[in-house]
Amino acid sequence: MSDQSKSIDFQTLSKIRTFQKNESEARSYCRSFPTLFVRAKGSTMTDMNGQDYLDFLSGAGSLNYGHNDPEMKSALLDYIADDGIGHSLDMHSAAKAKFIDAFNRYILKPRGMQYRIQFTGPTGTNSVEAAIKLARKITGRKQIIAFTNGFHGVTQGALACTANTHHRSASAATLCGVDRYPYDGYMGEGVDTTEYLEKMLTDKSSGQDAPAAVIVEGVQGEGGLNPASMSWLKNLARITRKAGAMLILDDIQAGVGRAGSFFSFEKAGIEPDLICLSKSLSGMGLPMAITLIRPDLDFWKPGEHNGTFRGNNHAFITGAASLEKYWSNPAFERGIEQRAAEVHKSLNRILQANDNIAVQVKGRGMMQGIEMQSGALADAVVAECFRHNMIIETCGNEGQVVKVFAALNIEMEDLKNGLGVLEQAVATVSANADKEINNKKVKA
Amino acid sequence: MSDQSKSIDFQTLSKIRTFQKNESEARSYCRSFPTLFVRAKGSTMTDMNGQDYLDFLSGAGSLNYGHNDPEMKSALLDYIADDGIGHSLDMHSAAKAKFIDAFNRYILKPRGMQYRIQFTGPTGTNSVEAAIKLARKITGRKQIIAFTNGFHGVTQGALACTANTHHRSASAATLCGVDRYPYDGYMGEGVDTTEYLEKMLTDKSSGQDAPAAVIVEGVQGEGGLNPASMSWLKNLARITRKAGAMLILDDIQAGVGRAGSFFSFEKAGIEPDLICLSKSLSGMGLPMAITLIRPDLDFWKPGEHNGTFRGNNHAFITGAASLEKYWSNPAFERGIEQRAAEVHKSLNRILQANDNIAVQVKGRGMMQGIEMQSGALADAVVAECFRHNMIIETCGNEGQVVKVFAALNIEMEDLKNGLGVLEQAVATVSANADKEINNKKVKA
Amino acid sequence: MSDQSKSIDFQTLSKIRTFQKNESEARSYCRSFPTLFVRAKGSTMTDMNGQDYLDFLSGAGSLNYGHNDPEMKSALLDYIADDGIGHSLDMHSAAKAKFIDAFNRYILKPRGMQYRIQFTGPTGTNSVEAAIKLARKITGRKQIIAFTNGFHGVTQGALACTANTHHRSASAATLCGVDRYPYDGYMGEGVDTTEYLEKMLTDKSSGQDAPAAVIVEGVQGEGGLNPASMSWLKNLARITRKAGAMLILDDIQAGVGRAGSFFSFEKAGIEPDLICLSKSLSGMGLPMAITLIRPDLDFWKPGEHNGTFRGNNHAFITGAASLEKYWSNPAFERGIEQRAAEVHKSLNRILQANDNIAVQVKGRGMMQGIEMQSGALADAVVAECFRHNMIIETCGNEGQVVKVFAALNIEMEDLKNGLGVLEQAVATVSANADKEINNKKVKA
Amino acid sequence: MSDQSKSIDFQTLSKIRTFQKNESEARSYCRSFPTLFVRAKGSTMTDMNGQDYLDFLSGAGSLNYGHNDPEMKSALLDYIADDGIGHSLDMHSAAKAKFIDAFNRYILKPRGMQYRIQFTGPTGTNSVEAAIKLARKITGRKQIIAFTNGFHGVTQGALACTANTHHRSASAATLCGVDRYPYDGYMGEGVDTTEYLEKMLTDKSSGQDAPAAVIVEGVQGEGGLNPASMSWLKNLARITRKAGAMLILDDIQAGVGRAGSFFSFEKAGIEPDLICLSKSLSGMGLPMAITLIRPDLDFWKPGEHNGTFRGNNHAFITGAASLEKYWSNPAFERGIEQRAAEVHKSLNRILQANDNIAVQVKGRGMMQGIEMQSGALADAVVAECFRHNMIIETCGNEGQVVKVFAALNIEMEDLKNGLGVLEQAVATVSANADKEINNKKVKA
Repeated sequence: MSDQSKSIDFQTLSKIRTFQKNESEARSYCRSFPTLFVRAKGSTMTDMNGQDYLDFLSGAGSLNYGHNDPEMKSALLDYIADDGIGHSLDMHSAAKAKFIDAFNRYILKPRGMQYRIQFTGPTGTNSVEAAIKLARKITGRKQIIAFTNGFHGVTQGALACTANTHHRSASAATLCGVDRYPYDGYMGEGVDTTEYLEKMLTDKSSGQDAPAAVIVEGVQGEGGLNPASMSWLKNLARITRKAGAMLILDDIQAGVGRAGSFFSFEKAGIEPDLICLSKSLSGMGLPMAITLIRPDLDFWKPGEHNGTFRGNNHAFITGAASLEKYWSNPAFERGIEQRAAEVHKSLNRILQANDNIAVQVKGRGMMQGIEMQSGALADAVVAECFRHNMIIETCGNEGQVVKVFAALNIEMEDLKNGLGVLEQAVATVSANADKEINNKKVKA
Repeated sequence: MSDQSKSIDFQTLSKIRTFQKNESEARSYCRSFPTLFVRAKGSTMTDMNGQDYLDFLSGAGSLNYGHNDPEMKSALLDYIADDGIGHSLDMHSAAKAKFIDAFNRYILKPRGMQYRIQFTGPTGTNSVEAAIKLARKITGRKQIIAFTNGFHGVTQGALACTANTHHRSASAATLCGVDRYPYDGYMGEGVDTTEYLEKMLTDKSSGQDAPAAVIVEGVQGEGGLNPASMSWLKNLARITRKAGAMLILDDIQAGVGRAGSFFSFEKAGIEPDLICLSKSLSGMGLPMAITLIRPDLDFWKPGEHNGTFRGNNHAFITGAASLEKYWSNPAFERGIEQRAAEVHKSLNRILQANDNIAVQVKGRGMMQGIEMQSGALADAVVAECFRHNMIIETCGNEGQVVKVFAALNIEMEDLKNGLGVLEQAVATVSANADKEINNKKVKA
Repeated sequence: MSDQSKSIDFQTLSKIRTFQKNESEARSYCRSFPTLFVRAKGSTMTDMNGQDYLDFLSGAGSLNYGHNDPEMKSALLDYIADDGIGHSLDMHSAAKAKFIDAFNRYILKPRGMQYRIQFTGPTGTNSVEAAIKLARKITGRKQIIAFTNGFHGVTQGALACTANTHHRSASAATLCGVDRYPYDGYMGEGVDTTEYLEKMLTDKSSGQDAPAAVIVEGVQGEGGLNPASMSWLKNLARITRKAGAMLILDDIQAGVGRAGSFFSFEKAGIEPDLICLSKSLSGMGLPMAITLIRPDLDFWKPGEHNGTFRGNNHAFITGAASLEKYWSNPAFERGIEQRAAEVHKSLNRILQANDNIAVQVKGRGMMQGIEMQSGALADAVVAECFRHNMIIETCGNEGQVVKVFAALNIEMEDLKNGLGVLEQAVATVSANADKEINNKKVKA
Repeated sequence: MSDQSKSIDFQTLSKIRTFQKNESEARSYCRSFPTLFVRAKGSTMTDMNGQDYLDFLSGAGSLNYGHNDPEMKSALLDYIADDGIGHSLDMHSAAKAKFIDAFNRYILKPRGMQYRIQFTGPTGTNSVEAAIKLARKITGRKQIIAFTNGFHGVTQGALACTANTHHRSASAATLCGVDRYPYDGYMGEGVDTTEYLEKMLTDKSSGQDAPAAVIVEGVQGEGGLNPASMSWLKNLARITRKAGAMLILDDIQAGVGRAGSFFSFEKAGIEPDLICLSKSLSGMGLPMAITLIRPDLDFWKPGEHNGTFRGNNHAFITGAASLEKYWSNPAFERGIEQRAAEVHKSLNRILQANDNIAVQVKGRGMMQGIEMQSGALADAVVAECFRHNMIIETCGNEGQVVKVFAALNIEMEDLKNGLGVLEQAVATVSANADKEINNKKVKA
């Protein structure tokens, strides 16, 4: 596909070689975007040559407000300039108090929610590990129920819950303690997969041991932008409680507005026992994660689950600023809705125009995408977009879904431009696909 | 022990209540230091009332250069002000290139070491998880050999390697895949515990399955400041290689100068297959972790082990600045040595003067401490130090070791002052202990 | 239900006390049949008072030819009298040669089957343990796929495959390596549950790791007399092979004629990779088990899986005699068919007459039964039968299925008599149930 | 070593081919003894050609009273002839009552022991599985502590406790829940290995989770005839109780008189919580196993651990006969002692005369042997003995120990003859070894 790939200048190439030589083969995104980034602002990333790129990836959901938001940036600069304490383990700090206040004021209280905050190590996987460990401690049980296409992280406890073979395979022999069930929609339309789960959980001879927890994403991101319906989540919550298990809502990717509301499950009217948040929580892409715990379930002993970087005050500062700036006003959610509608409309148009290679539009809120017939086709679309200076990525079990992960506050014009780039890219790939098919016919 | 505890003013108390009400019981350090920190610079932390504290904890080894080092701070301020990209997943970034260059130039090359860098999620436990996963992938084996008193993190894979019951208990039923062996010194002086390990690894009927890896700390920090001798490490490396297993050197706490040299194992002349670094790696306490991989062992597939925050560019900036500032000149290591000698001298003096409650001086380099007869005595020393405005903590299987974790660049005068505070605190606790004993005698 | 229970004489009671005092609480069948058995012949068991009982349990499928079959008994008496070697580990013995010859001649050859015989420890669970271990060795994979309501034994490896909570609960925290799927019919009529399994095995992000084996019973006995359809077994065999996994057919209870043919799966036209046989294999109820291995899959190293009693020559002698006597002539299978038809007819009649407490007729061949509305009702039927000197038991997830496990060669008259006893018992329980309901109505 | 191997006649060869063709490669003992056995009486086994062999293997400890003991045989013949019930699941049977009475009268009562008997599936591994499962149920803990060189069976739970790589390797990835410690003597003379265990069990940061049980053999059979000293067992019992764990004494091989007394641990004055017995328990080599449970620890629920063949009445009959015949009179134990002394004397003589290839005499009671410098040398001795019509086998981590496992009631003359055959065999192998060395010297 050399004709699709972007040409790279010599200086960039030589910089990239440093990474190829010194960084582990585990590196991945950089392979899709062979340049070197220097600066970023809002929805724009800039490389070493001054070339701008439109960011439709948003740090895989960690930059929901774009890069270097001016208010957050300003708050952080002030904080650092004033020698604000940066690393404080889990000692009391003014910055943490600020975050707790903002989180209560702008998020929990308006939603009538009551939770204790556990500041875990500052990564999503750590929040998940804390949640499943606490669920096991509370219930005295071992098994965790997780779902097809679920993604919860790659440390051992979270990885056992993660479904993807690519991530599991290195460790498969050591993963245990997880039972897998079909997510909403997995067994086709019209099949409510919670019925199967309920039967398994109530039948004494199903072979399903009483579980400590059910862990679920409101919308599966990495798994291919699969949204659970609110009624499915409601059923799941009911069944989980009936089984005496903890409901862990992993809102790491779908939360903080990505799926339309702050929490992805708000409309289901459920009360998860444990909620995992990370990614966009710090607002500016700084490492931060928390586990929300129903107050009556806070069974932790001091320091039982710890982590050196659980007091990342820079993230508390930007996090507090982000909550105040964006979530104090319902207009922000309405803005997400408008953008989501635009995305939906465009993706459907693209689908209809390219049904030779596109299969369906998937997702919810600002985590929508278009499923291609194969991972190779999706990769081709990504490469074509990059050629036109847009950063966008894929997800799904075969990497077949091109996902639109624009910032939630992206300028409407930028959003439309980006969707236009995508439309053009799909069209190009579609045309190439037709050409290839014709070529084959001619040769045959 | 109310007479020892520091009185807390009303305003601070009311601030602290916010944490007690909203934060999980898992919080721990804040219980030893009931105030609220606002600012920090060098070895000084300042609370909301403007009270200064001498920091002898250094973020549990994450602040080896003190707080808000001016050069790092300045570099970071410039970077942010310039809209330097903050969060870049694992795309190529100028900041990352800078870090890689500095790490090669100041650390690996001068030591004749060749390693590929894996940027894992930015926590120590994530680096450990990556290392044990890779070891299992390389060898196709499952078991990891870990040591008594070892601490490697609390996510499930790392926690299985961690020895401490307090951390293990919540998850004990789900931990597996780890075999435990006695660390250097565990079976008393004069016993080389690698002999037992070697016998177990070579005897076909020992019951020890062929291991994927041996994971070890050069000096055990959390486990009680237990240093391994260089000959022990050398034997361990030889035995590990003979067994076809990977040697994982967890230098998260003892590395980056804490034990005297950049890597804790330098004098042993060994070449670990995998090295875990974190804590002080970013220089300024920002979340960052890497796993060093012998180039021929980099068996990762792209993205096989990932993590949202593995591109924390702020940490790359401060990390590069820290390496350049401190490790370009051998004078820095000599400075650590001088300070370590001062600590050693003082601790021994304290030991001799208080042998009714103190047992021994432990540790190496700038991770030394004094073992008390009980965890309760050690806690009393910590509280007494805090009363005199010094932050210091304990470690060890019973929390019985008071550890001196001053910054590596602490002013010699501050160091001496702090050691003086410690000396006085131990003396006070010792006198109280004698008083209690006398009281008991009188009553009896 | 004291009016239903059989009165016990003083002498019997005093004998039974010996067991209550000295035997573990783990004992179970003896609780349903409070007497002491001395002798047994054909379908008749005789207690210490000379009372005869009709045996509709047949050693839970271990006595398919009844007790003390004259030809087997005679062969065994001769063998022992002649000092035939009894215990020979796995040395070559004439008795074993005899069994191998008979098994080849009467079972494998006529069915066009080729298998190597592994003589495992003489229990069904040992055969299962050998099979799953070998499957893991062959494939280098860990997971075993097992089914709802499956029963495969209670040693740890087999127990992990067994579905019943009652058996699992004592060990739940240590069971792992098994994934559970719905058996044929579990998700209701018309749902082919192999479709779900196939999707899970082919989707890279289902979370189902590549399995070492699929273990399945042709008809589930303990699980409640659930027969798999031949097309379901065929689909299962195809999917298993496609997944590169071993198909383990556990024919321990359904095999040796119980389900109608020697192997329960004969009509499906499949070729399992591994077959587990035990229970009636020795013909006379003596401990014996084998694992049949497809010749190209015999990856065992000498002694890798062993067991002290794998050379139980008495069982080889009676086993050979049983195969020759019963399986050399197709008339035997026809006889099973006739008896099965009789059972079917009677059970359906009982069902229709007692639909207030009976739910459905279940099973296949000579492993049929009647499902009651509850385990308590089924227990009442069993107690009522015992009062009329018949031994019969229950199965199913709630013990709600009364199972007719008469000998395959039971005299037709005895069979009819027994079914008559059952009919009367169900009627009595049904009448009592009505009475209770009426009483409740009166009281209410 | 063709000159050492016994020539095999054509007819035998052709019979053996049946096994090679039809039996799994898992078969093992038959490879050492290439003939076909027909009859056996006392210490004599007879093959198809009428050749007698002296049995120094005794069914690996299952034939402690020799083959076809006349009283047991007679009791069994009578029982079968009278249609005594053979298979009775766990219903009450007269034969079982007889066994329980005899076991109480001749074994438990004279030793002041009180235990409940669990009749498990009739194999040693099943008794072990029941014991570890019950220990986990009682304590709610997971880990089992087992020892170097321990052998407890090959089903998954028991196999996890077994040390030998040969047996473990096929399943290594799935074994878990066991921690391994050095058995008595493993770390050299003068080292009491219970000290290490005690430290690990009392240190909160050792990494040893609180165990459910410690499982240990009084004398390790398969592991190489390693006897534990009584003081070591006493220490172990004390430490185990202190840790709140169950002490499981696996006396399957060393029990029933093999180590000198009925239980191998009698002189230690300890009271194990659970005792596993099998092998010679039925007296005549018939499959039988029990788990003895301290009455206050009988936490089983009915049928929670079951097994089809746990009511093997033939074994109850011969077992009861064996206890009455041999254990009603202290003369039997004295006879074991005399024979053991003879074995000891002879083995020491052999050792001294052949110290070029022999290393040491090992074991206790009638489970003694001579360790050769290699497994190959031990195999050569076995082959040489077989050439002189004696059946003897090896054990140990490399199969380097030739073990004398004569019947406990072997005629003194037969014992001396056998020891003479062994002496001659070792001498021949020794001479050949010298010859080879000389040849090598000449060639060099």
